[in-house]
Amino acid sequence: MRVEILAVGTELLLGQIADTNGRWLGEHLAAAGVDSYFHQAVGDNRARITTALRTALARGDAVIACGGLGPTQDDITREAIAEVMNVPLVRDAEISRRIEGFFHARGRAMPPSNLRQADVPQGATVIDQTRGTAPGLICPLGRKVVYAVPGVPHEMAEMFERAVLPDLRRRMSEAGEGTGVIVSRVLRTWGTSESALSEALQGRIDALDAPSRGDGRAGTVTMAFLASGIEGIKVRLTARARDEDDARAVLEAEERKVREVLAATLGDVVFGLDDVSMERAVAALLVEQRLTLGVAESLTGGLIAARLVGVPGASAWLRGGVVAYDSAVKFSVLGVPEGPVVTEDAAVAMARGARRVLGAAIGLGVTGVAGPDPQEDIAPGTVFVALALPDGAPPSRSLRLPGDRERVRQYSAISALDLLRRTLRTPDHGFEAPTLG
Amino acid sequence: MRVEILAVGTELLLGQIADTNGRWLGEHLAAAGVDSYFHQAVGDNRARITTALRTALARGDAVIACGGLGPTQDDITREAIAEVMNVPLVRDAEISRRIEGFFHARGRAMPPSNLRQADVPQGATVIDQTRGTAPGLICPLGRKVVYAVPGVPHEMAEMFERAVLPDLRRRMSEAGEGTGVIVSRVLRTWGTSESALSEALQGRIDALDAPSRGDGRAGTVTMAFLASGIEGIKVRLTARARDEDDARAVLEAEERKVREVLAATLGDVVFGLDDVSMERAVAALLVEQRLTLGVAESLTGGLIAARLVGVPGASAWLRGGVVAYDSAVKFSVLGVPEGPVVTEDAAVAMARGARRVLGAAIGLGVTGVAGPDPQEDIAPGTVFVALALPDGAPPSRSLRLPGDRERVRQYSAISALDLLRRTLRTPDHGFEAPTLG
Repeated sequence: MRVEILAVGTELLLGQIADTNGRWLGEHLAAAGVDSYFHQAVGDNRARITTALRTALARGDAVIACGGLGPTQDDITREAIAEVMNVPLVRDAEISRRIEGFFHARGRAMPPSNLRQADVPQGATVIDQTRGTAPGLICPLGRKVVYAVPGVPHEMAEMFERAVLPDLRRRMSEAGEGTGVIVSRVLRTWGTSESALSEALQGRIDALDAPSRGDGRAGTVTMAFLASGIEGIKVRLTARARDEDDARAVLEAEERKVREVLAATLGDVVFGLDDVSMERAVAALLVEQRLTLGVAESLTGGLIAARLVGVPGASAWLRGGVVAYDSAVKFSVLGVPEGPVVTEDAAVAMARGARRVLGAAIGLGVTGVAGPDPQEDIAPGTVFVALALPDGAPPSRSLRLPGDRERVRQYSAISALDLLRRTLRTPDHGFEAPTLG
Repeated sequence: MRVEILAVGTELLLGQIADTNGRWLGEHLAAAGVDSYFHQAVGDNRARITTALRTALARGDAVIACGGLGPTQDDITREAIAEVMNVPLVRDAEISRRIEGFFHARGRAMPPSNLRQADVPQGATVIDQTRGTAPGLICPLGRKVVYAVPGVPHEMAEMFERAVLPDLRRRMSEAGEGTGVIVSRVLRTWGTSESALSEALQGRIDALDAPSRGDGRAGTVTMAFLASGIEGIKVRLTARARDEDDARAVLEAEERKVREVLAATLGDVVFGLDDVSMERAVAALLVEQRLTLGVAESLTGGLIAARLVGVPGASAWLRGGVVAYDSAVKFSVLGVPEGPVVTEDAAVAMARGARRVLGAAIGLGVTGVAGPDPQEDIAPGTVFVALALPDGAPPSRSLRLPGDRERVRQYSAISALDLLRRTLRTPDHGFEAPTLG
């Protein structure tokens, strides 16, 4: 099964937005073991969408068309697909009712053009819309198929997982294809560099590349590194095997080896697996240890609190935060002694202030200079992070972070959370100095 | 002249990296007035690169192929182009010398495979490499042409400006094609829907589409809508004219008309132009009116403060924020009366608390239920936003927001900022209820 991705939208051709859907779909098709050899992007033009669909169908078995399903005159993917299928569009009563209901539930009048979204090429199957107003479509063309999904990324992703991928799998299985599976797992690291990871794991990479490795029948594993900017560096392990059980078994065996090597060489750099973000890792430790947290932020300006609030169930352990952007707020609200505020002492005082004012077991304080200009004669990228723990002496550390204002702020936020994570993972909550990535 | 962009690299198909070159080239071709109707991406496979090149040449006049020009066995764009041209590759002595010199200057031994980069399809013109080791190529195919440039973004961009665009302009001028320019501008809106915008502006869309509109010689304008999720909906105006001055003139005239229509029909929905975010719009008003701001956040958990801190110069007007996630923090730090905290009264008390505790001219308070579970028997998506202004009676409003936890929080943040923006834009700071988008 060769699947081509077709992104629809003039804004993509003009470079006004990035084609994040193509990238996401490419990643997810690969993870599912589905071949995708070509991507296309085309503007909101019926003749050209038709051309692109025909091109994709001529060189592949399936097309996933993203975008152009909305209510406006620009949205003509439905019409183009109907033309390629050589069938009329038929207005679907059930979809019409849902769209009307969507507006009714929000107490808004529905502009009539919205009902264009209920037009379905004759013979197509509808993928119900659960998030927006535009449904998706599964459009058969002989043994081939065109899937149409909305261009809004979270709607696209949800429909892909719920309807497109299962349909693709069914077709592949009917075609007696690709009985093997590909499973991958991502180890997420913070506090090291891609080259340090690569050197530490060179032995494992060589072992995986060796032609006569162990029980070859069980499955093979490959390793790749993916620098993910403010989210650290990911180590992706991909296993290919006959079935899911075999794939998971070889994956787990390799994961154990990689974790052992990293712990022995680089320390506690792996903070999470797959979609476990730094804040989720911190949350799990706080829940496990029944501790509550309060945050005092200066240059990060709420980024740390906002990440923590994003974890469902945060109310069990997050008391709140103080964004002390103006120095006066540091003095008056947090009780930081008047004087310089870009110092390690100020970070410690902020952490203690957060713990006291917010009534938390642990206080986390961050101060520093985001830039572009220096502050108190201190260079942009200089950041101080401190913890105030229940049992006294607070760990704190200073950082020199690279990048512009936005990156310094983002790096500060994840570095502060990583300090908390590493501290919570040491049995006596003593401080362990991490290496910065 | 229709130019297709072809990005080469398996890592693009697998979603391991984003196709930033396609986006950059799309933007620069549009700015130069060159039509680009299709983009393709293809992996490092000779047969498939050949297929993609033939497809692009069949539906266009020129192809810009990015990537696959390096020294490794994966780099086979040269071979594919030679196959499509039906000519052999010839090793170029001058390029060989330059590559050897590149390594020599860095005191490094040259792996022999690097000389593959000196292979040129017979009949092609070389674009000298000034940054890396791989030269670019201008490969004629009858009246059509394939440009090959490296995939490294800064090398690609430099060769495009220096060699590809001038060659394209020359061909366009020889073909008697008006090179003209395209200029676009984006009006950013919040508080309305894509279909409402489309209906309000239908008259303008019809006027722009009419064949005999005004002084056609001056330039033409097209309009498109772009739903941008938590950043609202963008109205993009694109002008095409003989020169930059004409394009800007027609664009400005159309922008004035669009703003008039929107103000008359949907109210104050346009918050910014091009890259002016909601927080920048708010910042400009605070600076202009010499007002300072303090924020009290519950479900948004620091998102509002974090957006505001992202504006350079925020220290002039942002005092800080309190993230009162736990109800006890609302009571103790902000002085919210004990009782239910998901109410309009609580939002007002939070706004007043923020103003007082943070010593700001304006307090902004946000409380609500992000979900997934109800709180105080109130449904997820219920959000209250309030302002405490210097002169007394605070405007406040309640919202019903769609989406999951993350979206409710993001929508709450921008909605709260929009309430502040609209309020600051009314001469007497009276409250004007916006319609939610």
